[in-house]
Amino acid sequence: MTKSPLLIDLKFSDRAAVVAALKRHFADRDVIDLGAAENAGRDLSACRYAILWQPDADLFSRATNLEVLFSGGAGVDKVLALEGLPDAPLVRFVDPSLTRRMSEYVVLQCLFHLRQVAAYRDSQEARRWQPLPQPEAGAVTVGIMGLGELGRDAAAKLKMMGFNVVGWSRTAKTIEGIETFDEAGRDAFLAKTDILVGLLPLTAETTGLFNLALFEKLRRGGPLGAPVFINAGRGGSQVEADIVTALDRGLLGGASLDVFETEPLPAESPLWDRENVVITPHVAADSDISALFAHVERQIARFEAGEPLEHVVGRQRGY
Amino acid sequence: MTKSPLLIDLKFSDRAAVVAALKRHFADRDVIDLGAAENAGRDLSACRYAILWQPDADLFSRATNLEVLFSGGAGVDKVLALEGLPDAPLVRFVDPSLTRRMSEYVVLQCLFHLRQVAAYRDSQEARRWQPLPQPEAGAVTVGIMGLGELGRDAAAKLKMMGFNVVGWSRTAKTIEGIETFDEAGRDAFLAKTDILVGLLPLTAETTGLFNLALFEKLRRGGPLGAPVFINAGRGGSQVEADIVTALDRGLLGGASLDVFETEPLPAESPLWDRENVVITPHVAADSDISALFAHVERQIARFEAGEPLEHVVGRQRGY
Repeated sequence: MTKSPLLIDLKFSDRAAVVAALKRHFADRDVIDLGAAENAGRDLSACRYAILWQPDADLFSRATNLEVLFSGGAGVDKVLALEGLPDAPLVRFVDPSLTRRMSEYVVLQCLFHLRQVAAYRDSQEARRWQPLPQPEAGAVTVGIMGLGELGRDAAAKLKMMGFNVVGWSRTAKTIEGIETFDEAGRDAFLAKTDILVGLLPLTAETTGLFNLALFEKLRRGGPLGAPVFINAGRGGSQVEADIVTALDRGLLGGASLDVFETEPLPAESPLWDRENVVITPHVAADSDISALFAHVERQIARFEAGEPLEHVVGRQRGY
Repeated sequence: MTKSPLLIDLKFSDRAAVVAALKRHFADRDVIDLGAAENAGRDLSACRYAILWQPDADLFSRATNLEVLFSGGAGVDKVLALEGLPDAPLVRFVDPSLTRRMSEYVVLQCLFHLRQVAAYRDSQEARRWQPLPQPEAGAVTVGIMGLGELGRDAAAKLKMMGFNVVGWSRTAKTIEGIETFDEAGRDAFLAKTDILVGLLPLTAETTGLFNLALFEKLRRGGPLGAPVFINAGRGGSQVEADIVTALDRGLLGGASLDVFETEPLPAESPLWDRENVVITPHVAADSDISALFAHVERQIARFEAGEPLEHVVGRQRGY
């Protein structure tokens, strides 16, 4: 039996990295890479596997025999929303590299706000030597919403950096050394939180969750002056007009946003030049392409050996 | 026996914090706080203990019976250089709070350069959505010079964040999981280093150590494009004109400097507005004043109980 070709439709910004990684992976089967112009009109009906990130709209009408779908990133909301999505298992990308990169981002942004990087940058631009009173991490509570792989790794690293850490997830989770809350404890969780970190998937429950009413429940009078909001989950979970209002009213003292309601963030968004707001273009945790391909190779090997796939998305819960 | 009064001469920027902390410490003895105007002319001859940070020039001619000196910060070079310094034990400030704060700074600055914060800030200012290729921490080697309390804690935290970490100290030290080098291995250490972190005391050997000849030995062709220099030790260890030259020549791609040859850094220094250089006003690890006073209380109690003092500075080695 010839091995079924693998379909790849990955609209990553670093196209060269995809091409380079393909040379080192999938040596035992054909790859149809839709990022290559010569594959535009190819017959895709023999493909049983596909790796997807922002795939073509007509993909599923062309690739009609897919048995396993692989998401090119940790979030699967966009894949789940695709028209014509076949009823095949969808495998999330879970990888130590992706998790480590996300924790790099979360720890960086928490330290950025703790250590007043924006205020010191203003002093630097004015050539002004001006020490500021500096609370230490232990005086600041970071509240993480979302306690999957990413949230748990970030929690452990923030704790090791000295922050006080609390966690929230829809259903109760127990994490050694960290106080956790579930849906019923959400207000109590928010009342303890100085820096709120969003690492949630986009589902019906999380759409528009980070709004003014929620920001009003964060801890007041904490050591940072006002709470900070960091979102590296999904832009659809935040109400950007409310973030702007909360910043204007001092309900938030700063923010770090990697995800947005509309991406790319439109040039006219008022968020770009708000004080103490850090905007990054959805790069908190780039998929390491080689790691992604190795993960897909492992899962295909399991599937073809009759073993269960890992990290399969629950269609009902949405992640 | 009445307890000897404690002399305090701490020229910290946050004077209010000193006053507040004094209310919670040294309840069992008089404190002569030279920061209070009414103590300007006081007789200091009964003082056996003094806590010092940038003390008055005439202090030792007034306080002639000091038996133990306490440094208000981790670095003691300035105290050791004071004219008339009595031949009494000098106790360094070693404290978990100070160590944690220093590691906050070091991890923040390493992540700042790894994650291209300055480049993304430029994009943000131009309202430009522009993802950049992003190596992960594991592809980057941080080389720490100075493996005392501060260097070892920073090394452990950087490693936990995923960085590859190597360490250098004058005399060989063994640290679990980290490759270390001594004086004989300095060039080999530098040749591996993408981000150089200075956490050295100021001594005859470290004066002017961070110069062009040293920067030329750092790893070339690493994942950051060019090496980065971070100094949170002492400004006297760096040659600032050489840092500027190295930045201009691309021998360094960035720097984070908390300490300077002259402090405050003069307004005319070219470092203030160099690209990808982060200037902070010697605040990497503020002494937590309450922790400092608790440390002094512990050491005085040991001294008066006839136990040996801890963290006594070696005058010969200079730290």
